[in-house]
Amino acid sequence: MTKPLIGIVMGSDSDLGTMGEVAKTLDEFGVAYEMRIISAHRTPNAAAEYASEARERGLKIIIAGAGMSAHLAGVLAAYTTLPIISIPLRNPNHGHEALWSNIAMPPGITLATMPENGCKNAALYAVEILALADQTLATKYNSFRQKQSAKVVDKDTKLGKLGWQKYLDS
Amino acid sequence: MTKPLIGIVMGSDSDLGTMGEVAKTLDEFGVAYEMRIISAHRTPNAAAEYASEARERGLKIIIAGAGMSAHLAGVLAAYTTLPIISIPLRNPNHGHEALWSNIAMPPGITLATMPENGCKNAALYAVEILALADQTLATKYNSFRQKQSAKVVDKDTKLGKLGWQKYLDS
Amino acid sequence: MTKPLIGIVMGSDSDLGTMGEVAKTLDEFGVAYEMRIISAHRTPNAAAEYASEARERGLKIIIAGAGMSAHLAGVLAAYTTLPIISIPLRNPNHGHEALWSNIAMPPGITLATMPENGCKNAALYAVEILALADQTLATKYNSFRQKQSAKVVDKDTKLGKLGWQKYLDS
Amino acid sequence: MTKPLIGIVMGSDSDLGTMGEVAKTLDEFGVAYEMRIISAHRTPNAAAEYASEARERGLKIIIAGAGMSAHLAGVLAAYTTLPIISIPLRNPNHGHEALWSNIAMPPGITLATMPENGCKNAALYAVEILALADQTLATKYNSFRQKQSAKVVDKDTKLGKLGWQKYLDS
Amino acid sequence: MTKPLIGIVMGSDSDLGTMGEVAKTLDEFGVAYEMRIISAHRTPNAAAEYASEARERGLKIIIAGAGMSAHLAGVLAAYTTLPIISIPLRNPNHGHEALWSNIAMPPGITLATMPENGCKNAALYAVEILALADQTLATKYNSFRQKQSAKVVDKDTKLGKLGWQKYLDS
Amino acid sequence: MTKPLIGIVMGSDSDLGTMGEVAKTLDEFGVAYEMRIISAHRTPNAAAEYASEARERGLKIIIAGAGMSAHLAGVLAAYTTLPIISIPLRNPNHGHEALWSNIAMPPGITLATMPENGCKNAALYAVEILALADQTLATKYNSFRQKQSAKVVDKDTKLGKLGWQKYLDS
Amino acid sequence: MTKPLIGIVMGSDSDLGTMGEVAKTLDEFGVAYEMRIISAHRTPNAAAEYASEARERGLKIIIAGAGMSAHLAGVLAAYTTLPIISIPLRNPNHGHEALWSNIAMPPGITLATMPENGCKNAALYAVEILALADQTLATKYNSFRQKQSAKVVDKDTKLGKLGWQKYLDS
Amino acid sequence: MTKPLIGIVMGSDSDLGTMGEVAKTLDEFGVAYEMRIISAHRTPNAAAEYASEARERGLKIIIAGAGMSAHLAGVLAAYTTLPIISIPLRNPNHGHEALWSNIAMPPGITLATMPENGCKNAALYAVEILALADQTLATKYNSFRQKQSAKVVDKDTKLGKLGWQKYLDS
Repeated sequence: MTKPLIGIVMGSDSDLGTMGEVAKTLDEFGVAYEMRIISAHRTPNAAAEYASEARERGLKIIIAGAGMSAHLAGVLAAYTTLPIISIPLRNPNHGHEALWSNIAMPPGITLATMPENGCKNAALYAVEILALADQTLATKYNSFRQKQSAKVVDKDTKLGKLGWQKYLDS
Repeated sequence: MTKPLIGIVMGSDSDLGTMGEVAKTLDEFGVAYEMRIISAHRTPNAAAEYASEARERGLKIIIAGAGMSAHLAGVLAAYTTLPIISIPLRNPNHGHEALWSNIAMPPGITLATMPENGCKNAALYAVEILALADQTLATKYNSFRQKQSAKVVDKDTKLGKLGWQKYLDS
Repeated sequence: MTKPLIGIVMGSDSDLGTMGEVAKTLDEFGVAYEMRIISAHRTPNAAAEYASEARERGLKIIIAGAGMSAHLAGVLAAYTTLPIISIPLRNPNHGHEALWSNIAMPPGITLATMPENGCKNAALYAVEILALADQTLATKYNSFRQKQSAKVVDKDTKLGKLGWQKYLDS
Repeated sequence: MTKPLIGIVMGSDSDLGTMGEVAKTLDEFGVAYEMRIISAHRTPNAAAEYASEARERGLKIIIAGAGMSAHLAGVLAAYTTLPIISIPLRNPNHGHEALWSNIAMPPGITLATMPENGCKNAALYAVEILALADQTLATKYNSFRQKQSAKVVDKDTKLGKLGWQKYLDS
Repeated sequence: MTKPLIGIVMGSDSDLGTMGEVAKTLDEFGVAYEMRIISAHRTPNAAAEYASEARERGLKIIIAGAGMSAHLAGVLAAYTTLPIISIPLRNPNHGHEALWSNIAMPPGITLATMPENGCKNAALYAVEILALADQTLATKYNSFRQKQSAKVVDKDTKLGKLGWQKYLDS
Repeated sequence: MTKPLIGIVMGSDSDLGTMGEVAKTLDEFGVAYEMRIISAHRTPNAAAEYASEARERGLKIIIAGAGMSAHLAGVLAAYTTLPIISIPLRNPNHGHEALWSNIAMPPGITLATMPENGCKNAALYAVEILALADQTLATKYNSFRQKQSAKVVDKDTKLGKLGWQKYLDS
Repeated sequence: MTKPLIGIVMGSDSDLGTMGEVAKTLDEFGVAYEMRIISAHRTPNAAAEYASEARERGLKIIIAGAGMSAHLAGVLAAYTTLPIISIPLRNPNHGHEALWSNIAMPPGITLATMPENGCKNAALYAVEILALADQTLATKYNSFRQKQSAKVVDKDTKLGKLGWQKYLDS
Repeated sequence: MTKPLIGIVMGSDSDLGTMGEVAKTLDEFGVAYEMRIISAHRTPNAAAEYASEARERGLKIIIAGAGMSAHLAGVLAAYTTLPIISIPLRNPNHGHEALWSNIAMPPGITLATMPENGCKNAALYAVEILALADQTLATKYNSFRQKQSAKVVDKDTKLGKLGWQKYLDS
């Protein structure tokens, strides 16, 4: 069993449906991860312990997703020198609270903020970082990007052939 | 020397000019306090320790002020069952980041959020809480409120006498 | 029958479905309360009277919830020296009007603002205040907080056992 | 001495510099007014009394200006059936709190909200209302509007003659 | 047939479902009105003509509702000296465009802005204005306000009797 | 087969349902267009190539629609001197990201921004530009505008006949 | 003297300092323009007349700048089929009122909205449109774009030579 | 001379005063960088070329700062698989345009967004990434974090000794 390189942390199990996409995307690249439910406010000691030990446990990156006041990523960042990728989770019935809470870190402690609910991009950014020191992963990622481009080209070609109304009906 | 009942905590000494008004207002009511610079992100262990020990050290209320991502009040709340009063500190050149970070606490861990830079009101709210069990303080606070009302009445009377233009010139 | 310590006030019976959670949460802690429908705009005299008499009637805290312009909490605060906890009620189809109306009290009259629709936290904050002078309640609240933490730990453990996909299916 | 038709009310004497423009504009139309400093939060009884007695005292309209949470206009509206014109006063260092507080009155109690710091327009709107039953005032107002238009025409003509750079230098 | 005192104008027939409440509320007070679909952008000449002739046709007030850029009320105001009441119509899928467009009239031409979709309040405000010169209407309006207050009192009494859970079930 | 004058470009085939209205509107005016799926981020070379060659291929205007960060229109503008019309595509569950990204172009490279999802207006604006040099098209557009006005007049007439309640039922 | 192709219209002479940049930019391209002060609200007939006659007077494009509620561009668009370029003028002490008023035109009448205070880009966009039918202007514009690019390259080269600190001191 | 690992790119030399802090912070850690002025809109080919060649030229990370529409970081991301750190540059007189443009990247192409003007944190985040594969740098960064914490402790101690008023005077 592979030792995890990425810690995926979320504040509540109600975030799991959204945060699962981080795991799913890492799976596509064969990047090993672990997944935890740790609340900055309900289990602060677990948060402190997790972040404090992350480096020595072999993690390279922590991806943290939380909603509302969303202090989780900042709390983890306070206890580790590993790069943290934060995902502001947003329920469309709310405002942009989690984003504002994540994006305005004061100078000295740093988070890399992803789009609201940007789980796929969080995983891809982690892959980009790991790929700096892993040529196999770099090749996989490059291939993913090329396929992603090719899909757009294919759709563009299809649109050219069918016209927009038939495309919509197809 | 009186034992402090209120802990005033701020994230940086750059907040002291603003947060001093909390102290000044408590002084007017003779409420003992202590004042600390503790950063949720730079000195997280100090934050955890301070909040964890606050109750047994005899504190009744913690007033926490921080700017930008402003995780301080939430972090303190995670480690104590004392009431926390949070003041989102706002530099007018910024957006409302600290307010959003403070106001959207998830169910289960709670903050009482004050206006942006609302240092005077934070102190008054603490006085209101303490006054529930301190009749002398309740009397002082009642008197403060009456004087405050009287000042408005005086200004209203003065305006009636002078008219608005002379009032402005006075 | 126990004398109420908390007054729960809302501006309209259409708020009852939301504000019921304040009552439900106080019930869990055995804190006695009374519940009123009083409109700052439609029954202003009732609001003035209620707040004016609240202290002598033995109330310790007023929890006020209102939507839209949400002047209720501020109006009550004007007539009492008891601590007020305000809950900005928000219909997701609206903007953040109630929050802005609650959060920006001018220096001198103070509200403790809760999250939008933050009924549970309003009740918990009231419990925190009352627990300052009630050791039994403090013990109950401490126990609540520990159970709350334990639930997160349990979910985290379950996630570790099942993995995220089985957890979601469970 | 003419009996006032308009009550100009503001929450603090710090608003007088701005609210003076209401008076100045009414002066230009010869409309009698009175001016009061009444705080919704600091002198709520004065607010209730003022609004309750306004109609019988012969007032026709109340113009209320307040900043921050800006509950003043709503509080006055609760106690009178006279039309209220509300001016959200805004310090550019703040957000739009007063506007949101004024603009979202619930169905049943109504305010006419003016632009932020829109003192001149508040006075003009009051003139429009009074002019419905005062032909002399209607004529004055009509003349004001025509002069106002003529000034724009004059500036347009001047621009045509001078060109924009000389206009700016003039 | 009674001559209309109020002109209700909307920019599109898609606004009729919302704007109908203006008519319905005026009906309750027996205030005669006429209703028009006039677009500031699609039928600008009709808008100019309507507003220009409104006073001589005997109208006292124009109530204008429009969504999106919502220039209608401002355009009407440019052509008449009658008081205009503007209702920013808002589809919850949009931002606050209509409100911003209505609320920021420059000094000299004035609108009284109502809440977003605030059709009932627009009608009530018109009633308040007309009642200044119509004692019968003033009495009706006073009665409406008293009944409105009484309904809140009744609900408050019912809540006291039933408790919140039975009230919700009732 | 007519040579296209307008290039309609979108960032993803998921935008086709919305962007189809651009095509449909151009069809009504008989303006020839081509339609492409080109992503600023996934197929940047295609974007560069498309914009670079657009003028020499005979295009007169590019209409670009994209959501979220919505860099597409700006990227195309960087590679061509043709006028670009940008449509910020907005999912109501999101904020106004695409609008802010489109509307704040720095001095020197310019976009004409349409309303959020303003596909019809984008097509009409393109028609207005083309009609400057095409009298037949100008006549068609003039006729469209007149019919559009006539429809409002018809609805206004219908409302006058039926009254609002019957109109709604019809 | 050349016949103007562009009408630059602003709502007030206080906008002239900002709007002058439109003229200045058009001067650089030798594009003839006329400049007018016309208020949508104060001189609505002038606005209607100006837009109605613009096409027959030989204008090709109208550039309209206004602040606050900023109805000017929409009003002009209602009376002409010429392309309108709107510039929302923003005083940094205000919100984004003019932008919201300009950007949300309903389907059927269209504006091309520029950045807030985006006077230079408004002029450039007009040049792009005119250049579609004017090869000399197209060549000038192409040259402008190349020089603009070259300036960035020169600065980049200078930065490479000097390093950032010396560059800042230079 | 050390080969640069970080490319610092900005859209204009007017950003140099702000972006210089990225360089200064990297200097403190002895991390080699290069600095470029490349505009997404004015020199798009340079942007494409720079990003396309970055990996083979030995760069590990690109830090991109731009204001207003701020498409630079997204454009670079389209042409490289290296991690990009984006800094939304904000003039306090503007809104949050650059932030919205940076934060909402669609799934598939990813940016790590820093705080508005968060140049120091951008550099620190780059250091965190490089330190994953560079033990010497990891040690330096760890030491930086400890010193940073110690400074807060020192200030806290000083506050304890002096009290807040003397601290402010010192």
